[in-house]
Amino acid sequence: MSTAEKAIRPVLIAGEWRQAKHEHTFKASNPNKNELLPVEFPVSHWEDCDAALEAAAQAAHELRQLPAEKIADFLDCYADRIEAAKDALVDAAYAETGLAKSPRLADVELPRTSNQLRAAAEACRTGNWAMPTIDTKTGIRSCYEALGPICIFGPNNFPFAFGSVSGGDFAAAIAAGNPVIGKANSSHPETTYLFAKEALEAAKQTGLPEATVQLIYRTNHADGERMVSDPRIGATGYTGSRNAGLQLKTAADRAGKPIYLELSSVNPVVITDNALEERCDEIVTEFTTSVLMGTGQFCTNPGLVMLQKSDRSDAFVKAVAEKFNTTPAGTLLSPAVAKSLSASVQKLCDFGADLVTGGGEPESDRCAYANTLMVTTAAAFLKNPEGFQTEAFGNAALIVIGDDIAELCKAIRHLEGNLTGCIYSASNGSDDDGCETLAAELTPKVGRLLNDKMPTGVAVSPAMNHGGPYPATGHPGFTAVGVPASLIRFGKLTSFDNIRPHRLPNLLKDKNPTGKTWRMIDGDWTCEDVS
Amino acid sequence: MSTAEKAIRPVLIAGEWRQAKHEHTFKASNPNKNELLPVEFPVSHWEDCDAALEAAAQAAHELRQLPAEKIADFLDCYADRIEAAKDALVDAAYAETGLAKSPRLADVELPRTSNQLRAAAEACRTGNWAMPTIDTKTGIRSCYEALGPICIFGPNNFPFAFGSVSGGDFAAAIAAGNPVIGKANSSHPETTYLFAKEALEAAKQTGLPEATVQLIYRTNHADGERMVSDPRIGATGYTGSRNAGLQLKTAADRAGKPIYLELSSVNPVVITDNALEERCDEIVTEFTTSVLMGTGQFCTNPGLVMLQKSDRSDAFVKAVAEKFNTTPAGTLLSPAVAKSLSASVQKLCDFGADLVTGGGEPESDRCAYANTLMVTTAAAFLKNPEGFQTEAFGNAALIVIGDDIAELCKAIRHLEGNLTGCIYSASNGSDDDGCETLAAELTPKVGRLLNDKMPTGVAVSPAMNHGGPYPATGHPGFTAVGVPASLIRFGKLTSFDNIRPHRLPNLLKDKNPTGKTWRMIDGDWTCEDVS
Repeated sequence: MSTAEKAIRPVLIAGEWRQAKHEHTFKASNPNKNELLPVEFPVSHWEDCDAALEAAAQAAHELRQLPAEKIADFLDCYADRIEAAKDALVDAAYAETGLAKSPRLADVELPRTSNQLRAAAEACRTGNWAMPTIDTKTGIRSCYEALGPICIFGPNNFPFAFGSVSGGDFAAAIAAGNPVIGKANSSHPETTYLFAKEALEAAKQTGLPEATVQLIYRTNHADGERMVSDPRIGATGYTGSRNAGLQLKTAADRAGKPIYLELSSVNPVVITDNALEERCDEIVTEFTTSVLMGTGQFCTNPGLVMLQKSDRSDAFVKAVAEKFNTTPAGTLLSPAVAKSLSASVQKLCDFGADLVTGGGEPESDRCAYANTLMVTTAAAFLKNPEGFQTEAFGNAALIVIGDDIAELCKAIRHLEGNLTGCIYSASNGSDDDGCETLAAELTPKVGRLLNDKMPTGVAVSPAMNHGGPYPATGHPGFTAVGVPASLIRFGKLTSFDNIRPHRLPNLLKDKNPTGKTWRMIDGDWTCEDVS
Repeated sequence: MSTAEKAIRPVLIAGEWRQAKHEHTFKASNPNKNELLPVEFPVSHWEDCDAALEAAAQAAHELRQLPAEKIADFLDCYADRIEAAKDALVDAAYAETGLAKSPRLADVELPRTSNQLRAAAEACRTGNWAMPTIDTKTGIRSCYEALGPICIFGPNNFPFAFGSVSGGDFAAAIAAGNPVIGKANSSHPETTYLFAKEALEAAKQTGLPEATVQLIYRTNHADGERMVSDPRIGATGYTGSRNAGLQLKTAADRAGKPIYLELSSVNPVVITDNALEERCDEIVTEFTTSVLMGTGQFCTNPGLVMLQKSDRSDAFVKAVAEKFNTTPAGTLLSPAVAKSLSASVQKLCDFGADLVTGGGEPESDRCAYANTLMVTTAAAFLKNPEGFQTEAFGNAALIVIGDDIAELCKAIRHLEGNLTGCIYSASNGSDDDGCETLAAELTPKVGRLLNDKMPTGVAVSPAMNHGGPYPATGHPGFTAVGVPASLIRFGKLTSFDNIRPHRLPNLLKDKNPTGKTWRMIDGDWTCEDVS
């Protein structure tokens, strides 16, 4: 590493890489070696935030005057640049997160990231996300428009696809016409830095305001709260720990600023006795693959399994424990994740869960924790539903065994909001009645209901809901994944009433701006012009 | 009045008119005579709220199993019953609010109310509000679904069309499949009682759960906050004073429960010098008609007018003052409204606004306040923008005079979020450049932008946005008026991933459930079946 590269990394403000106003610095850790990486990153003072907010407000004003086409070009160009910079990005992310270079980072997460940016570009180009609505009888027309500067706090577990200046929130915020201020996740600041470099170049190349993308690595908590409630901010996207998220939420709520949070989720999976009778081995494989994938560090990790008491459920627990024992524990993202996983498992055991296997750190130089399986009864769960819903983020799961479907339904009634909920049942429909009852209880609690399928795959589909009732997220009506729906979060609904035709936004003029934009005209969706 | 009718009015809980658990009672006032009306209403203890919440949770569960058709039938039946009960409703509302029986109550607000219910019924029947989305490639389908019991706090100024158990929020909440707990506005409890009676009968007649509509008249503040944050609540709709609304918001936010607020708005109207040169008299008439309509007690009342300094603006102020002087002051809704209007005018004058006319109570037995016009400079406004945005709810307005368009733009930049913003300009386009600059500043601040038209008419149009950035409302992405968009607020987005076909909601099955429901299938809106 050259001297220049050893220097403290600059922040990106107003199109300029500049030394942060700071006192303290931090380093990321390499979870593969459980040691700190050499590069230092600044903890910015409020001055940096203020400068970024000022530049973002100006950029927001300029972006509003630009045709959507230019913003879409930026997203496409950025996607191309990310693919060209793939090796460096993968190396940096591997060093900072321990996630496998291949297939995970290079072949799964990176293409997902660039594809997401391109899908957002397409949504931006057509304007379909904005739901243009025209009422010719009253002369009123409406659509969603850019909301203003968006502050994005990305999570630790997807350095690319949910990254502060590269992921789904970023793509959605930009495609809706807003500048972004990224707050890097402290566990992969170098990866985020590399992304921001590409983003700035893409902005220059396509003629967007240079403050369209800005980057700060870290601030103190008070300044974070000040950011999300600043009058210049349009909204905030946050994915991460519940405590930090709720502090930001309190600050943003008080200021009347939207904040979209993705906090925690145990993702209940109910497996009926008939399903186990029919295909226990198959379900054991599906479950263990899903729960240990990425060392269990997915928002949609199936952390809570609900079973009916029987010989089949005993066999299921035994078979899962066996798989857990024989599968090497993966690497965790950081020492902090390992520590928190250990604390959560301890908590669950303190509440009375029985440890079936795991429950400690394997001998290793890596950040790791043994694959951990716990079990308890529905009766115990019902005595302390809050406690037994403690999220153990990582390669651990809790199995809850109830006497019958009715008792499982009671337990489900005490679930908090979750991103997902699954029901596995017999394929011949023999337990359909029970499933109907289960689904009636489970559906209101989750953002996505699944049948006979584990929840860890989150397809970028127009029908995806990566969301759910609190505390899974902060609002049950929005999804963080999926185009065009995820863009709405960063839009403001605006009605144009009696506006002179030449002053209307292109999306609302009589002529369909692209010839293929879906608009609701007098109650019907159509791509036609207003006649 | 018979003895029975003199008794304390019962609350409606779980389909039963029962005596409230209460200690205190209150009476509404008759603003036409400035005296209390005879009927007593209970201030419910928490026990009533708890019982209503419990019944609502059960009703929500039952409603989810019912076909949308049945809910739509209820809304239509209720609309019919409201029309049949018109005379009694109009009499009660006239006594409690002083609003004119005709045309206002009988010929404008009542038909608006029943039409709104019928439009909601139609949205419920087709399911268009739920935005069914089908992705055949991934096997994922999504739509909005009922969220859970909705608590509605209606405002004082529209006893029918925004009433807790009759208005827009009510219609939207029910059409989205949710039961409603109405909290009557304390200024028209008898009107609300009469509506709830009709609603209960309509629920019985159409076979809905009897707890679909419940009614409480008043609680203490702590119990109100407890209601909106209760785990059994889905969301809350609130229209009313900023202080009370923000207290509820704090409680709901803390619990992660959506709350849709409509708080306050001064509804800026910018009139260019060229527009005044062209048609001053016409605009004076439009403005005074709008600002004095309903004694200025509209959420969209144009309370802040911005002008360029010139002989024309002097003439405008003079002409408006003249009209204010020669138009009799209307009746205000209650002594509380008169008191608060007086306090707001006093505040604005204390901040330095000049009183052009009005500013006191006319000699009258009614609740009334003189038509009041104030004027200040943009320079003064810019020194205390918060103060000069004090909402004077009622028949009062503040005119802000700037040196030029640039100074007005500066003032607009300091505006809080508003429901509406208008620009009046020359019809020959001579000041189009200035208008573009004005619109660029004004649009991000408002939910609805108008040209050459006053904001007081709020059409029930699919393109209407009766909303706007905080503090006009609590979230810039939602409208409280307009079908189907207003229903979304009371829906929960749910994805169905790999769900067995027979278990899908009707809206998401291959066959289009009505033959005319708009669904997005593989990226295109269509009424066809899935092929």
